[in-house]
Amino acid sequence: MSIRTSVHPSDLLATLREREPLVQCITNAVVTGFTANALLAIGASAAMCDIPGEAGPFARIASGLLVNLGTPTAEQRDAAREAVAAAQSANTPWVLDPVAVGALPIRTALAHELLGFRPAIVRGNASEIIALSGAGAGGRGVDAVDSADDALEAGRAIARRTGGVVAISGPIDIVTDGFDQVRVTNGHPLLTKLTGGGCALGAVMAAFLATESPLDAAVAASSVYGIAAEHAAASAAGPGSFAMGLLDALAAVTPAEIATEARLS
Amino acid sequence: MSIRTSVHPSDLLATLREREPLVQCITNAVVTGFTANALLAIGASAAMCDIPGEAGPFARIASGLLVNLGTPTAEQRDAAREAVAAAQSANTPWVLDPVAVGALPIRTALAHELLGFRPAIVRGNASEIIALSGAGAGGRGVDAVDSADDALEAGRAIARRTGGVVAISGPIDIVTDGFDQVRVTNGHPLLTKLTGGGCALGAVMAAFLATESPLDAAVAASSVYGIAAEHAAASAAGPGSFAMGLLDALAAVTPAEIATEARLS
Amino acid sequence: MSIRTSVHPSDLLATLREREPLVQCITNAVVTGFTANALLAIGASAAMCDIPGEAGPFARIASGLLVNLGTPTAEQRDAAREAVAAAQSANTPWVLDPVAVGALPIRTALAHELLGFRPAIVRGNASEIIALSGAGAGGRGVDAVDSADDALEAGRAIARRTGGVVAISGPIDIVTDGFDQVRVTNGHPLLTKLTGGGCALGAVMAAFLATESPLDAAVAASSVYGIAAEHAAASAAGPGSFAMGLLDALAAVTPAEIATEARLS
Repeated sequence: MSIRTSVHPSDLLATLREREPLVQCITNAVVTGFTANALLAIGASAAMCDIPGEAGPFARIASGLLVNLGTPTAEQRDAAREAVAAAQSANTPWVLDPVAVGALPIRTALAHELLGFRPAIVRGNASEIIALSGAGAGGRGVDAVDSADDALEAGRAIARRTGGVVAISGPIDIVTDGFDQVRVTNGHPLLTKLTGGGCALGAVMAAFLATESPLDAAVAASSVYGIAAEHAAASAAGPGSFAMGLLDALAAVTPAEIATEARLS
Repeated sequence: MSIRTSVHPSDLLATLREREPLVQCITNAVVTGFTANALLAIGASAAMCDIPGEAGPFARIASGLLVNLGTPTAEQRDAAREAVAAAQSANTPWVLDPVAVGALPIRTALAHELLGFRPAIVRGNASEIIALSGAGAGGRGVDAVDSADDALEAGRAIARRTGGVVAISGPIDIVTDGFDQVRVTNGHPLLTKLTGGGCALGAVMAAFLATESPLDAAVAASSVYGIAAEHAAASAAGPGSFAMGLLDALAAVTPAEIATEARLS
Repeated sequence: MSIRTSVHPSDLLATLREREPLVQCITNAVVTGFTANALLAIGASAAMCDIPGEAGPFARIASGLLVNLGTPTAEQRDAAREAVAAAQSANTPWVLDPVAVGALPIRTALAHELLGFRPAIVRGNASEIIALSGAGAGGRGVDAVDSADDALEAGRAIARRTGGVVAISGPIDIVTDGFDQVRVTNGHPLLTKLTGGGCALGAVMAAFLATESPLDAAVAASSVYGIAAEHAAASAAGPGSFAMGLLDALAAVTPAEIATEARLS
């Protein structure tokens, strides 16, 4: 356990379940159902409130907000702008997931614009973080072609700019506040065979923001989600049963299991 | 069994499977897949026809229509207006599910507007029904904070206004036509851990509208859906396997099981 | 095995997994998640890139493209136009799935417009193929009321017009290039109880287009998908566990199994 995280993920999981944070999600059409189910499973509430005129007001009362750019329709882009402005003014912590940024022009411009509203956490794979920092051209669609360590400098640069943290997903997850970093080695390769595996993690991070600082929240989310994935993979026959089992495991995993199974460094 | 329902849910399930009603759904992005699968499982057909220019014509030929306001984009709002007007003129019975009404301005205005087109059934949780009646400010997003009995007066008031029935979901479901009411105690707490658990019930109600009067249809849907949830919960390891099992159970449950397991009063 | 398919589906499955084709999907809101998971399961990558301004550029770099008209919002219609024009100019092979065409005016007009951009494969049920050929009025929503053989002449006519192939789904699938045809008898009735069972097959066809000619690709996709459905059905307790098992089976099925279990004529 690094000195940089002051509270253990196991404590944060207990706190999350006690507080049942209400997480607003402006997310892509592919993963809405799985994301909401993941939030419910871990003990949070989910509200996919993503239309202009409602997204802003809701961001003022939500515990946390996720903005995921996977399928950003014009209406969702306006809703995202409205929501992050409201979140910033109401001190609602929020997570930016810049899906496939770099290669695609509209979401790339939007991601840069939203970055100015100081997300508490930016979560992406290595290719996305590199592209968002301006240091590369982005990956092949939604799949990373770089390792998290390749993106560490890019992640640090973004974190220093936003004042929040950057969580780089991969076989090893890295969370950095721009200066220090924590590595989380929990997880399972089947997560890459599940659409929205990473997207749902972004929502879980938004839920953990209701419990602690962004660094602790991102580390706790990565660790708890990764351990649940390990549990689910143990009895999965493939990606279908893994998806089902991951929801079961997010609901069943206990703080005591997190305490013994978290692998942080 | 109350005298107010003239036909037992077990008979209506048999009728539904015989008729295979075609249910048009204008519903939220989070639950479309699960809702369509629930309709197919119980023996209906599903058509998620929700764009202006098609929603109206389709509502004339559908057996029943669901309008769910969970993520009401501008295009869906227009499609909903078009569909309910066509439904009313073609005598297609329809269900209104005013998700998270009260707290959020756009869907609240739309719900009040659509109410004028006389939905056969309004289905919501207690907070939503209270908010829709004008008696309260709505819940915390999509989750009810009141019990169904708290919303009974509000439900009655709405039913008298529409001439249809109101179904209030909760640990105990209540269906009222504005004068009398039937309580359905089938169901399982895991339904609250499944996103769209209530939304899919609204679609199942629209399917049962092809078999009988709104009161009987809403009672039958609540009872059959609740019994299927009980069956699914019996072998579920958590919310993921419960969701899967609920679809299996909706397809497998028999009229004979409904006859012995329905708990109405 | 017909002489008209030069390569066996088992070989194409091996090739697909080696190449990991990136399939762009412009598809309906009901099935996005299941479709992406099916693509990942079989060994492809999925990108649901469906907004104007991004859909075109992406179609130039994707391995294959699926355009499915299940819930065609105005933005998706523009994205589809942009994507197929780019696909044609960049030689990206694409699949058109004209869901519920015939009965509904907006998608019907769009389907005819898109047909001019020469889809490599048109995939639909018999009613849709008949309606698209101009020979009939379409089915009852998304469900076919005709058998694949009833649509053979219509399919041939479309294939001659596009220069590609037409795949007619049903208890027996037929693939025709306008002159010859291959029948694939793999599959299972539970596919009709799963929303998007056919939609996901369209995406899988787009993935197989990265391996061979349209005729071989469509036959391989129908056969592999049908065999996976047979495997899943063998241990399913209903449509919920079938959906889960189908994803597991798409990932687990081997070229050797395809070699022995494919039923083509």
